[in-house]
Amino acid sequence: MDFLTELKARAAIIDEALERFLPPPETYPPVIHEAMRYSVFAGGKRLRPVLVTAAAEAAGGEPAGVLPAACAIELIHTYSLIHDDLPAMDNDDFRRGKPASHRMFGEAVAILTGDALLTLAFELMAKNLSGDPAAAGRVLRVIGEIAAAAGTAGMIGGQVADTIYADQEIDPATLEYIHRHKTGALYRAAVRAGAILAGAGAGELRSLTEYAECLGLAFQIKDDILDLEGDQAALGKPVGSDQKNQKATYPGLFGMEKAKEKARQTAAAAIRALEGFDHRADFLRAAANFVITRDY
Amino acid sequence: MDFLTELKARAAIIDEALERFLPPPETYPPVIHEAMRYSVFAGGKRLRPVLVTAAAEAAGGEPAGVLPAACAIELIHTYSLIHDDLPAMDNDDFRRGKPASHRMFGEAVAILTGDALLTLAFELMAKNLSGDPAAAGRVLRVIGEIAAAAGTAGMIGGQVADTIYADQEIDPATLEYIHRHKTGALYRAAVRAGAILAGAGAGELRSLTEYAECLGLAFQIKDDILDLEGDQAALGKPVGSDQKNQKATYPGLFGMEKAKEKARQTAAAAIRALEGFDHRADFLRAAANFVITRDY
Repeated sequence: MDFLTELKARAAIIDEALERFLPPPETYPPVIHEAMRYSVFAGGKRLRPVLVTAAAEAAGGEPAGVLPAACAIELIHTYSLIHDDLPAMDNDDFRRGKPASHRMFGEAVAILTGDALLTLAFELMAKNLSGDPAAAGRVLRVIGEIAAAAGTAGMIGGQVADTIYADQEIDPATLEYIHRHKTGALYRAAVRAGAILAGAGAGELRSLTEYAECLGLAFQIKDDILDLEGDQAALGKPVGSDQKNQKATYPGLFGMEKAKEKARQTAAAAIRALEGFDHRADFLRAAANFVITRDY
Repeated sequence: MDFLTELKARAAIIDEALERFLPPPETYPPVIHEAMRYSVFAGGKRLRPVLVTAAAEAAGGEPAGVLPAACAIELIHTYSLIHDDLPAMDNDDFRRGKPASHRMFGEAVAILTGDALLTLAFELMAKNLSGDPAAAGRVLRVIGEIAAAAGTAGMIGGQVADTIYADQEIDPATLEYIHRHKTGALYRAAVRAGAILAGAGAGELRSLTEYAECLGLAFQIKDDILDLEGDQAALGKPVGSDQKNQKATYPGLFGMEKAKEKARQTAAAAIRALEGFDHRADFLRAAANFVITRDY
């Protein structure tokens, strides 16, 4: 499998669904709907939503049936980037090579755009995942898990810790907390959402969760590495911004070589967690390799 | 019925439930959980959540069963106040007589606190309203309605329009759009959520929706009036802030006397909408009177 070709094909299906789920840009008041689309269609890799569909597939389900949950997770990811870039937070003027939302639309609209994307995520899950009355319980479970992963026990908790420790010495346990929560929780929720909606058994769900936790950690370590060694054109953002913002990173704490070794080991552990799955988990296996070899 | 005594008794039940649903303040990272509680327990009237329980009661249901939805709406209301007060938005330093969240915890934490409260609203509905499997479909419907009311077709849409027109001439239709959306949508969702969860029939739901729309509009007109004529100590915020911020208001557009007349007529229409209901709707009737006679 050529992973990037396959990822692009799967990302196109996500883009199509996002196009359907987002209000048309001319909907009143237009500025907020333009701003929502501007950030959602700013060129993300769609890794998280594709993981939702791939996890459903690995668990024997139908990828098309989990598109609302997949898109919801991408909307939550996008909202978190918009708010993270704000002057009061990381103060980044660029995201994926384009002006950040607040540079395009002003701070007030950027704040509201993040709020709107987060809200829409839950609306579309509640309204589009409930065709089968027997499935309503599963949908509620997934909404609960995604909300928990996005909240203070997950992504927001990691972001708060990252903010608190931005200009302080940091120990390895805190760095791991930040990574597991800021990035890891949403990866974990993406994989679990797909699996739960596909009706995965408890054992399958445990293995996929282990996979997702390793994948999220490997992704974040690689992100830290790219921030120091990456190519600005490929990344679409300035390198060294973690250093500039005095962010705690794996290479900063352990050195570059150990960070790379940890990324490799963690990706290998992700693949090992899928031992009990057949070829329908091949995309997930390839994703684990991609996460540590990517250059953007 | 002494409405204020009754409201306080019902608000105490909401406060107890909020205390249960909010993570303990020492939960890591503590600053965000302290900040969430700071704003949630800053002295709100709890009108919206009490309307959820009162609408359930009017429709023949059990108020205790709708507490998660009631608290969710209060969390959404609180998040919207925190974000509205930010320097990039209304730039208000005080809320309910206390320093605004961003004055207490800094802008970054205030932004994240709003995000966290919005996220928690959906988590607690998904996790606490699903005891009865047959009810899961109703819960999904309510999550969808509340999200729609809080999003760009509701509260956020109204807030965006309010921001756009902050320093422009405004026509009556746009003012009505702003009020119906910025404040009205959440009142409507509160009443409908209680009614839907209680199993209201289509006719009951229509009448309660009519009630809620009138109530929300009356509330907002009275808010505009209080901003000009109110007592700063009772309100807990400076009077004249709409004028200062060049906000469009009913008295500004129609004059004070016509604004007061419209508030009275709208409250009367709310009460008329409840004609088909028995004594279990008495609290809702009293609420319509309170909304236009309150001095805070």
